[in-house]
Amino acid sequence: MKTENLIGYKYTGNKKAFRAIDPSTGNELDGEFSIASAEDVDAALALAEKAFAVYRNIDKKTKATFLRNIAEEINAIGDELIERAMAESGLPQARLQGERGRTTGQLNMFADLVEEGSWVEAVIDTALPDRQPAPRADIRKMLIPMGPAVVFGASNFPLAFSVAGGDTASALAAGCPVIVKAHPAHPGTSALVAEAIKKAAEKNNMPDGVFSMLYDDGYAVGEALVKHPKTKIVTFTGSFKGGTALLKLAQQRENPIPVFAEMGSVNPTILLPEALECRYQQIAEQYAASITLGAGQFCTNPGLLIALKSPTLDRFKNALGGAIEKITSATMLTPGICKNYSNLSEESLREQGVTLLGKGKLSEGKNNQVQPVIAEVRASSFLVNPKLREEIFGPYSLLVIADYEVQLQQVIDALQGQLTASIVADEGDLKTHRDLIQNLTNIAGRVILNNVPTGVEVVQSMQHGGPYPATTDGRFTSVGTGAIKRFVRPVAWQNWNQDMLPDELKDGNPLEIWRLLNNKWSKEKS
Amino acid sequence: MKTENLIGYKYTGNKKAFRAIDPSTGNELDGEFSIASAEDVDAALALAEKAFAVYRNIDKKTKATFLRNIAEEINAIGDELIERAMAESGLPQARLQGERGRTTGQLNMFADLVEEGSWVEAVIDTALPDRQPAPRADIRKMLIPMGPAVVFGASNFPLAFSVAGGDTASALAAGCPVIVKAHPAHPGTSALVAEAIKKAAEKNNMPDGVFSMLYDDGYAVGEALVKHPKTKIVTFTGSFKGGTALLKLAQQRENPIPVFAEMGSVNPTILLPEALECRYQQIAEQYAASITLGAGQFCTNPGLLIALKSPTLDRFKNALGGAIEKITSATMLTPGICKNYSNLSEESLREQGVTLLGKGKLSEGKNNQVQPVIAEVRASSFLVNPKLREEIFGPYSLLVIADYEVQLQQVIDALQGQLTASIVADEGDLKTHRDLIQNLTNIAGRVILNNVPTGVEVVQSMQHGGPYPATTDGRFTSVGTGAIKRFVRPVAWQNWNQDMLPDELKDGNPLEIWRLLNNKWSKEKS
Repeated sequence: MKTENLIGYKYTGNKKAFRAIDPSTGNELDGEFSIASAEDVDAALALAEKAFAVYRNIDKKTKATFLRNIAEEINAIGDELIERAMAESGLPQARLQGERGRTTGQLNMFADLVEEGSWVEAVIDTALPDRQPAPRADIRKMLIPMGPAVVFGASNFPLAFSVAGGDTASALAAGCPVIVKAHPAHPGTSALVAEAIKKAAEKNNMPDGVFSMLYDDGYAVGEALVKHPKTKIVTFTGSFKGGTALLKLAQQRENPIPVFAEMGSVNPTILLPEALECRYQQIAEQYAASITLGAGQFCTNPGLLIALKSPTLDRFKNALGGAIEKITSATMLTPGICKNYSNLSEESLREQGVTLLGKGKLSEGKNNQVQPVIAEVRASSFLVNPKLREEIFGPYSLLVIADYEVQLQQVIDALQGQLTASIVADEGDLKTHRDLIQNLTNIAGRVILNNVPTGVEVVQSMQHGGPYPATTDGRFTSVGTGAIKRFVRPVAWQNWNQDMLPDELKDGNPLEIWRLLNNKWSKEKS
Repeated sequence: MKTENLIGYKYTGNKKAFRAIDPSTGNELDGEFSIASAEDVDAALALAEKAFAVYRNIDKKTKATFLRNIAEEINAIGDELIERAMAESGLPQARLQGERGRTTGQLNMFADLVEEGSWVEAVIDTALPDRQPAPRADIRKMLIPMGPAVVFGASNFPLAFSVAGGDTASALAAGCPVIVKAHPAHPGTSALVAEAIKKAAEKNNMPDGVFSMLYDDGYAVGEALVKHPKTKIVTFTGSFKGGTALLKLAQQRENPIPVFAEMGSVNPTILLPEALECRYQQIAEQYAASITLGAGQFCTNPGLLIALKSPTLDRFKNALGGAIEKITSATMLTPGICKNYSNLSEESLREQGVTLLGKGKLSEGKNNQVQPVIAEVRASSFLVNPKLREEIFGPYSLLVIADYEVQLQQVIDALQGQLTASIVADEGDLKTHRDLIQNLTNIAGRVILNNVPTGVEVVQSMQHGGPYPATTDGRFTSVGTGAIKRFVRPVAWQNWNQDMLPDELKDGNPLEIWRLLNNKWSKEKS
């Protein structure tokens, strides 16, 4: 395993270094990872800018092969990758094997998207030389990549939202070189994946600098990357504090750049009366599982349940509390996340009107364990305490109980932007709460009926991104094919010669992509 | 003509008022326009929020009829509109008649777009109940409107970028209520158009608050509108100072919102040797006309010409200088713009190395006239003086002369983001300068070959928006159908009943729009 910074095709080391920690034991793991210097940041971006001039013009088949080869190289690492990721994250084997499948699946999905080619949104309006009073020129538009992208690895998905995760895959697919700032919690996992990308790049003769990865156990390298004039896009998945700090840096640049930060969400779930009446036991078990999945360390963890006071709700409360009490603690990703969860979940129980509904069991003999917590509060207390609207990252959920119908809507109106909002409802509920349900699209990027929000499908139709503060920009998604749109902008070509136009815009549609040609969609070669 | 603020369907007046000025005479015009209060801002936004809940769900045919009726009502005003706009802007009759045609054309274009319906980018992935290890839920995504939009009227297009201009048309088409902050230079023109929108809204039973318009001769109303928590989007066309001030306000909100500010550009034009050799006289005449069109008061005015030193260039310089000297001054839009132009163009001639190449004639007997100016400077001086890269709004252009080939690229590299970049080139030039030409997409939203940048076509393929500081967000356009994308964000529906889904996403494609259904594009009803 390499422990130096990867700058283009070269590994370079510095004296300053750090080690990874196994959160389940607290022990240091193998490998001293070199902390990048300001010069390393400069070097990576200088190479990335040069690489961009070449990489943006590489044909779509070669780009697709490059992405597929990254997936193959990741699989080729074999068990070593899963074992190192387990040691660095505390996540179980099956979860990480699944996450690896998702990661390679994403790379292959973007390869397919790029190879098919229609994602560039080609639009052509041919010239009208006889138009009066003046002729109309030929104008053709498509999406082009913006330049080097800085991708911050996320702690909670050491594979799927990290070095070769959805951000890197979509940036490379768009035609943007990538510089990853490796997450300090899993540098070894990062090193293995970075080497896989390097191999795939070399195999496909990609320009030197199409990919780099830098380490840091603090904030200096990340800040330098975001402030660097050659950086054109930033992606991040993590805390509100971290995401907004990067956003501010990017906005203060001489040339501001977009920061796509996914900063979490309490993912409200509204439990409607008829559904509870029919199947409160089943709902309780389903939500106990969703809240504690992956120790609650998902961006879409349902941290807020909202329901109307009723005798059935009391039965649901007992069932949910009982279900949670049966669940055993799991290892948290890092000591910092663990401590933060413990503090915040304890603090929440000291807030006015908040009481404990159920608490999970603590595993013995392992470090960084936390107990799942379900608390409850009346809507009247919730509405006057903004603190209760904030995410507690981990296996925590708060049940907010409304005394009457209007209060239900008041609770929803008090919420900030969310990644998801869910409804648990039966036929009758859908009829009686139609407005409330339809207004959920105002606050969330994904609205869910009788499904849990955890488990984000990687598909064309996915929207993983909601209004601020769930993300810095709810108009974009970090999951699914739409993620490629974060790295591009449209350019129009006016009155150009055929041989100077990109192939996507040439007469005759040589790439056979979907294009809007004189207001008609078509994909035929002609 | 009404002179009060229009809040939904009601006109309300305040004591504080201002008058419009005829820039060609300096005289005050008829009408005391009421300055909006903080309460008016609140009232307009409260109504807009209520209207949004209804308006967003209005069927596409009704919305299209509403837009077409606005166009009809604008035409129905007749000569009064053109006469008032002439008096308030100093622009000639033919130009304003053309601009009215463009304005109604835009409204009708967005009506067609909305009626056709595919612009919502519907994507559907149907459920896979038998997938292993877990079933996949049905997920469907489309673009939805974000809420009330604040539109700032622009001074330089009193019709096409003002009350019922492209911003209002695209916002209403998207499903967003609009609050216009009328430009203080043409309140009477604004009043006439606002009344036309009101009539069309009433005729189509649009919800009260779908449109409001407020006056101010200062900054307080604009600031209050951008800071108001119910405002969700801001559009602006004007100065860098104005646009960035609004952006800052929007970023400092508790919930930041997007500001689409188009802030101008020097629109560089690169004149290559072979083209100059063949037709320097024609190019000189073409550019003299483009630079002085509308007194140079276009965002796409070619403010920077870049060429290589040569004997032919000297002939071109004489021809350009001569052509400019024949051109007579025109009335500037406002005394402020006039004064600013005079100051900045004079200052530029005092900068190190800058010399005058030609100056137009001054009209007698009219106020607010300015002389067109063509200046020249060597690239070596240009490269060390950032001030020379800034736009001088009006009929001014600077010819930058490179001593050698590499300097040409250096000049381009020194430029900031631009709305447009143009190349004047013949076959041989295209071959010898291929890289230089292709890299122009890095700095501009529209790249033009052997055409002037003025004259922005309103078509699907138009991109009117370039990298910062040309606009606050070069990923969007303010002209053409793409402008609708500024007012929307995607939402995904997971596992919903058919009757709760928007029509755009229902099984069987009842609206017959283009949809990506299980990775295949289709528009058939089924």
